[in-house]
Amino acid sequence: MNSIDMSVSRMEEEISKRLKRFQDELSSHGVDGALVVQKIDLYYFTGTDQDAHLWVPSVGQSLLMVRKSLERAVKDAVTKQIVPLKSFSQIPEHIRSNGGTRGLDRIGLEMDVLPVNRYLTYQRLFPKTEFVDVSPWIRETRMIKSAYEISLIAAAARMADATYEKVPGFLRESDREIDLTSRIEACYRRQGHPGVVPTRGFNNESIYGQIMAGKGAAMVSNSAGPLGGKGLGPFFSQGASTDRIEPHSPILIDYAANVQGYIADQTRIFSMGSLDETLVRAHEAALGIQDALSGEGRPGVPAETLYDLALEIAEAAGLADRFMGYPDPVPFVGHGVGLELDELPIIGRGINTPLAEGMVIALEPKFVFPGQGVVGIENTFVVAQDGMEKLNRFPDTIRVC
Amino acid sequence: MNSIDMSVSRMEEEISKRLKRFQDELSSHGVDGALVVQKIDLYYFTGTDQDAHLWVPSVGQSLLMVRKSLERAVKDAVTKQIVPLKSFSQIPEHIRSNGGTRGLDRIGLEMDVLPVNRYLTYQRLFPKTEFVDVSPWIRETRMIKSAYEISLIAAAARMADATYEKVPGFLRESDREIDLTSRIEACYRRQGHPGVVPTRGFNNESIYGQIMAGKGAAMVSNSAGPLGGKGLGPFFSQGASTDRIEPHSPILIDYAANVQGYIADQTRIFSMGSLDETLVRAHEAALGIQDALSGEGRPGVPAETLYDLALEIAEAAGLADRFMGYPDPVPFVGHGVGLELDELPIIGRGINTPLAEGMVIALEPKFVFPGQGVVGIENTFVVAQDGMEKLNRFPDTIRVC
Repeated sequence: MNSIDMSVSRMEEEISKRLKRFQDELSSHGVDGALVVQKIDLYYFTGTDQDAHLWVPSVGQSLLMVRKSLERAVKDAVTKQIVPLKSFSQIPEHIRSNGGTRGLDRIGLEMDVLPVNRYLTYQRLFPKTEFVDVSPWIRETRMIKSAYEISLIAAAARMADATYEKVPGFLRESDREIDLTSRIEACYRRQGHPGVVPTRGFNNESIYGQIMAGKGAAMVSNSAGPLGGKGLGPFFSQGASTDRIEPHSPILIDYAANVQGYIADQTRIFSMGSLDETLVRAHEAALGIQDALSGEGRPGVPAETLYDLALEIAEAAGLADRFMGYPDPVPFVGHGVGLELDELPIIGRGINTPLAEGMVIALEPKFVFPGQGVVGIENTFVVAQDGMEKLNRFPDTIRVC
Repeated sequence: MNSIDMSVSRMEEEISKRLKRFQDELSSHGVDGALVVQKIDLYYFTGTDQDAHLWVPSVGQSLLMVRKSLERAVKDAVTKQIVPLKSFSQIPEHIRSNGGTRGLDRIGLEMDVLPVNRYLTYQRLFPKTEFVDVSPWIRETRMIKSAYEISLIAAAARMADATYEKVPGFLRESDREIDLTSRIEACYRRQGHPGVVPTRGFNNESIYGQIMAGKGAAMVSNSAGPLGGKGLGPFFSQGASTDRIEPHSPILIDYAANVQGYIADQTRIFSMGSLDETLVRAHEAALGIQDALSGEGRPGVPAETLYDLALEIAEAAGLADRFMGYPDPVPFVGHGVGLELDELPIIGRGINTPLAEGMVIALEPKFVFPGQGVVGIENTFVVAQDGMEKLNRFPDTIRVC
């Protein structure tokens, strides 16, 4: 178990800085306050994942209204003002009695994840209020990680490294993709992985990741990412299948580690016996793209510059039509990671967000060869003052077992 | 791998019956059609979990509009009309050109799970349309299982039985709750468990289940269920912890199996060495409640009758204040299971839904003893013409290892 503890006072300081950034966005957009309810956002702004509503006024102290469990919320949260919430109908009076709240003309909600019925309930509770989507500002606040958060993501990268070191042994004991999966997941779990890798996108499953060997890996899928895998059937059609793992096929392992909620994403290629020269060359091209992008990336560089550079190198290698999915490639080569797998920024086509210090980004150049499999790499990088630092240490090369 | 295959023609017939029941609800409520987008509902009504919109007109053939992957949707879905969907803006014209569609005055959406931003997008696409929440009718349709669905849930119960048989061995090898968890999950996974147990409720994690030993099990949590567990920390505060498993403590294992998407829920108590007499007696009371409820349950009996009966027996045993959570008990003793863990009906206070043939219900009477632990039972039952049939076969008694 990797455990990184922080004193209460430092955690208070950390969270108060997070809130300040978010509150500045609320103020500058003329929003009176926000009701934060999604579990991950709640944890980020309070230190507890209990079932609760957090009222964040544009100025002043926030108020945590707890449905379940009040006892644990009081123990875990750094929020000063905590009250029980027996019924949603109490929310308006709780908010009105909160010192920091001025008006309630405009209230922010996490409209990217909040279910419609909840929204309609809040509309009934605040009939004169205009509701505003604050999820972009929450995601932008979360996009910049503190030193504490980066230390947890680095610990997650260590967890991934330690697990991937064991993969050659697991492979020798595994007949099928699902057997290999079961060993990797158990290894992660023993190290304190919570067993889920939260994603924000609607309909996305919070699975650890994807294992795909050989041609099944090249199957298109419903995944928001570049890959998919055959999966277990039409009821769950991505990730590991019950197919046997064949020699001389690329075995792609894209399995995110998770330490105290913080995720490090990592992909490596293993094989039992040598691989076709085409695949080996494509893997080298992926490593070339990774090196070029991480060499170019630094504060101020727009995300799209890295994506365009990746495409350029893929084209120069004659692999443009195999890059990031086939036949329908995704228009990105990287994404933020943190408490969720699909954080900002997206390193993709037309995304002009400039890189900034404290961003943590998974770069994942991959090439898909229908009928053969997938090769490529994924590592998690921190954007530092003078460039991008790689957190994962397990070797990038294809590991032939 | 438990695999139960069905011919395409039988699957078509099965899904056409499901759609007919839902369409009858749409018609009788004067709704012109529904846009189904949640992954589990999509799979239920089409046979594929690809990223898509399903248009179900109140009368006539449904239309599947697929974002990703069209190829796999065409292969897996029984839906006759399948078209690609490049942009949401194409949805109105696709629907208007669908033969079965008469008007678009009232369109149904899954408002219990649909994110607000999607809803606002649909409002822009259909500015003259009134939107209606159809999630209760979808959940009611899914509440009644076919023989095929019941066979899959029964297979899941076999998967749970086979796994629980191995728990005494796993326990001997495990120091901490998380070690035991890793072994059970790996065992499930090797049998084809997808690694997730989908839930419908907002903010609920799709984890396999909860393992809790001794006093940590009695901690209250954010869970929508009666229990919680200590969990791994404030970022994930339910289920297994890194605490050591102590002798003479009840080890509660509530781990749902999943075969081809269908769930069987099961809880058993294990212990290393004997347990305190109070706990043993409470466990016997839980078994008594289970037997009474399953003996009383049959088509036509209102859900609340079973809940009231459970409370009555708990009171007679002097255990009312320990029943279904402490200090804040949940007001139910059972719930439907199927493709999701939190299906209808709820066997709870004031729920007058009459039981009906084809319902599949997990009954879970449990007693919480702060400082000591939790005892109780959970089994998955089918409501048949003449009563409730238990699907799980692993013995209900406390297993002392």
